Amino acid sequence: MQTPLLLTDFLDRAVRLYGNKPAIIDQDENSYTYSDINRRVNQLSHGLASLGVEQGDRVAYLAPNTLEMYEGFYGIFQTGAIMVSLNTRLNPREYLYILNDSGSKVLFVDYDLFPLIEPVINEMKTVQQIVIHGAENANNGYIAYPVWLQSQPEADFPRADLDENDTATLLYTSGTTGKPKGVMLTHRNNYLHALSSMHHIRVSDQDTLMHILPMFHVNGWGAPFYYTANGATQVMQKSIDPAAILDKVQTYQVSVMHMAPTVLNGIIHKFMETKPAISQNVRVVIAGAAPPQAFIKQVEEEMGWEFNHVYGMTESSPLTLASYQSSEDSDLTGDAYYTMKAKTGYEMIGTKVRVVDEFQQEVAHDGQEVGEIIVKGNGVMKGYWNNEEETNATLVNGWLHTGDMGTIDERNRINMVDRKKDVIISGGENISSIEVEGIFHEHPAVQEAAIVSKPDEKWGETPHAMVVLQEGHIASEEELITFVRDRLAHFKCPKSVTFLDELPKTASGKIQKVQLREIAE
Amino acid sequence: MQTPLLLTDFLDRAVRLYGNKPAIIDQDENSYTYSDINRRVNQLSHGLASLGVEQGDRVAYLAPNTLEMYEGFYGIFQTGAIMVSLNTRLNPREYLYILNDSGSKVLFVDYDLFPLIEPVINEMKTVQQIVIHGAENANNGYIAYPVWLQSQPEADFPRADLDENDTATLLYTSGTTGKPKGVMLTHRNNYLHALSSMHHIRVSDQDTLMHILPMFHVNGWGAPFYYTANGATQVMQKSIDPAAILDKVQTYQVSVMHMAPTVLNGIIHKFMETKPAISQNVRVVIAGAAPPQAFIKQVEEEMGWEFNHVYGMTESSPLTLASYQSSEDSDLTGDAYYTMKAKTGYEMIGTKVRVVDEFQQEVAHDGQEVGEIIVKGNGVMKGYWNNEEETNATLVNGWLHTGDMGTIDERNRINMVDRKKDVIISGGENISSIEVEGIFHEHPAVQEAAIVSKPDEKWGETPHAMVVLQEGHIASEEELITFVRDRLAHFKCPKSVTFLDELPKTASGKIQKVQLREIAE
Repeated sequence: MQTPLLLTDFLDRAVRLYGNKPAIIDQDENSYTYSDINRRVNQLSHGLASLGVEQGDRVAYLAPNTLEMYEGFYGIFQTGAIMVSLNTRLNPREYLYILNDSGSKVLFVDYDLFPLIEPVINEMKTVQQIVIHGAENANNGYIAYPVWLQSQPEADFPRADLDENDTATLLYTSGTTGKPKGVMLTHRNNYLHALSSMHHIRVSDQDTLMHILPMFHVNGWGAPFYYTANGATQVMQKSIDPAAILDKVQTYQVSVMHMAPTVLNGIIHKFMETKPAISQNVRVVIAGAAPPQAFIKQVEEEMGWEFNHVYGMTESSPLTLASYQSSEDSDLTGDAYYTMKAKTGYEMIGTKVRVVDEFQQEVAHDGQEVGEIIVKGNGVMKGYWNNEEETNATLVNGWLHTGDMGTIDERNRINMVDRKKDVIISGGENISSIEVEGIFHEHPAVQEAAIVSKPDEKWGETPHAMVVLQEGHIASEEELITFVRDRLAHFKCPKSVTFLDELPKTASGKIQKVQLREIAE
Repeated sequence: MQTPLLLTDFLDRAVRLYGNKPAIIDQDENSYTYSDINRRVNQLSHGLASLGVEQGDRVAYLAPNTLEMYEGFYGIFQTGAIMVSLNTRLNPREYLYILNDSGSKVLFVDYDLFPLIEPVINEMKTVQQIVIHGAENANNGYIAYPVWLQSQPEADFPRADLDENDTATLLYTSGTTGKPKGVMLTHRNNYLHALSSMHHIRVSDQDTLMHILPMFHVNGWGAPFYYTANGATQVMQKSIDPAAILDKVQTYQVSVMHMAPTVLNGIIHKFMETKPAISQNVRVVIAGAAPPQAFIKQVEEEMGWEFNHVYGMTESSPLTLASYQSSEDSDLTGDAYYTMKAKTGYEMIGTKVRVVDEFQQEVAHDGQEVGEIIVKGNGVMKGYWNNEEETNATLVNGWLHTGDMGTIDERNRINMVDRKKDVIISGGENISSIEVEGIFHEHPAVQEAAIVSKPDEKWGETPHAMVVLQEGHIASEEELITFVRDRLAHFKCPKSVTFLDELPKTASGKIQKVQLREIAE
């Protein structure tokens, strides 16, 4: 029999098997069982229905990692509506664009973030109601979430009759050119992604996850779905403050965290400074560009945490590659082990990933030839919202064209070397900014480095370095350039360095190279 | 995007990522890599096409656990045909019925098993060709597999364009009443069952599986699919000879085995006798009725192997429940731990399992009230082959009615207490044969026991015991009855005992109570 793959199944299982277990430790460190969550989710669904939300409608959320954000997913899914989660680092005009483009009917907003949308409220074309998380009293026609939620019935909500190919979440990608695009992920997309991810990340009910990665960022890589299905405890964390995070790791015996490399970087520094006593096994799951080996070595050898690298993008739910020491890698020890761990990884079960040249042929499996990473599988989006042209440009012959450039080695391990648009082409040579950044990270004075292109009359482009130094360390431009020239082909070496106090980052912790390129120009 | 869930994906991944790794250690202990297997699978598909096999056709296999049986799955799937695997313990007329009912076009048969089908060859209505595994030369119009396979091209086979809801495997259940019924499991059924099973059984590429459970038995519980997807090594084992099995566990560093409890029973006895030095971690996955606690304790404490109990049936691909120590069971230690482990378990992710009374209402969660186990999920079959009536009687309102009786306890752990038809109704009281068998197993002289109903004028039915004694032990009927009466409500206690040299079993090791009831009558 074909039973539709619906995300509501995951909470149902947790409520049934783990009803009395702490499900959510919220941002104020209050604990809610899965049965508590279920009651609140039912109340939310009834509340949404009372606001006129129907199957297929869009409901927007602007919130950091909170209980209210988490329950939003399941409350919305029961009504058959679509969750539109908004990045907390956009500007008011961007919110306005997304709300209008998605045609969102209701907007839920965190009390502290309300000022972000206030300036554009009058220009919202479809939003009929704003509900404020954490507000004590309703006013100006806005609903105060806590009181409103408690006034709703706790009874089971009569669920919408959904198809697994109905859109569950609509996520706007921070398009670097043009307007943001809405990525439609269906219940089936998210569900099958969850089954594959929970297997590769080895999620179980013994886990306590801290939600550090924002849930608005590709649904927290689906974590609210697969940690729920397994009945794990989930700790909410609103900020990326390393001291607060390490405190909670201790207090709640956290076993697993997903985050961007830059966030882990901050935690490592704090950890080395304070050396907290953490006795449980901890694993971290990191996505994005492969971090320097030294970084991974420090996590595994000095902190004793297990390092897991994954890869993906919004358009693929997101995870498609996972780096792990396969049974065929058991010969890799010492540095070779860390080189392996720093690569992007192997295709996850249920997904095909290839690296292809401009003629769509697989590149050589030599770890050298660079091509575009393309993906096929059930995690791949239904398409862009109301944007057939971009959809057709991105989903070609059944394959998602990621715009990420990578290599594939003799062992079929894929390594993402750069975003297509971040590759620096200098005198006809391709330079991977990530490779050069890795060398900078080996210098003891460097905390963070980003390499971007700088226009050059002779070479077209040359690499330029943006560097943040470690606190209390000094290094000159000349010293750093010499250091890198000693370790890398000269054409790849930056000719200039800009020192910054910090690098501009997206909400999920990715370095914003677009902004850095503007500085370099 | 919706990408069809096809079983061919699993071998594709293994060939890509684990091409040079030992995939199969065959029955003669020859080793084949995943690339070797892929070549043979392509040759088989070409061979099938040359015999006129087309999409949707049925291809029958009569073989124990061999390389040829394993590759049969993938060779058939590429052509879009359906694998009909035959139990090796049927009689010729039963084979004839299944071959004709399924309309199988080609029959592959193991050389040693050829005599089983020889008497009925002339009555086969649809089989156009018989291919004999392990035959040296073709004769009488039969094809000798080894030569024939090697004569086929190794090139990639142009695969059939399949839908995920197309039937992949057709399995005949050993119907105890009436004719065997063909269970249609689709690619989607088997694929989603594989994703869920690999997660709960914690399969990885570090595993070496020994195929002890016959692959013809519900596709070896799907093991040829999910161990392949993960790139594990798979060791073929044709017989259930405990000494041979323990030898291979040592030689191949086997980490995991699936089997029926009776097979494990034999291995335990041999293990305790010979105490082989096995250093790797080993886990066993056991299905069927819950074994006695003493049995599990011996496996975990004396052998040091991890015991995992699962539950399912052919109609659900098969696994739907898994017994594990959940995060909520951490208080269970000592005997309470083994009581928990002996229960049938929790619903696996992706499947809903309920225990309902005759009005289809859930029974009390008290571990006492008995109801029928019903199942909903994507592992549930498409239906019975050409048998709408039985399909409609079994799949009711979207739920598979298993015919198994169970209880559910306060922690939502389901325990299968008996087959509906094996429940003994004595003076209006329901007696679980499994419960009574558990007490018999506690007696030191008892190796195996089965309780069946015996017609009784006064009570309608009474329980009757069939017992096999341990080698070198003696116990009288009276002694055993007294032993059981001291430990169990008297109405549950058998009034008579028959001593046997062995219990009749199915090929998968299940005790055949139908035959025992005939002896009892």
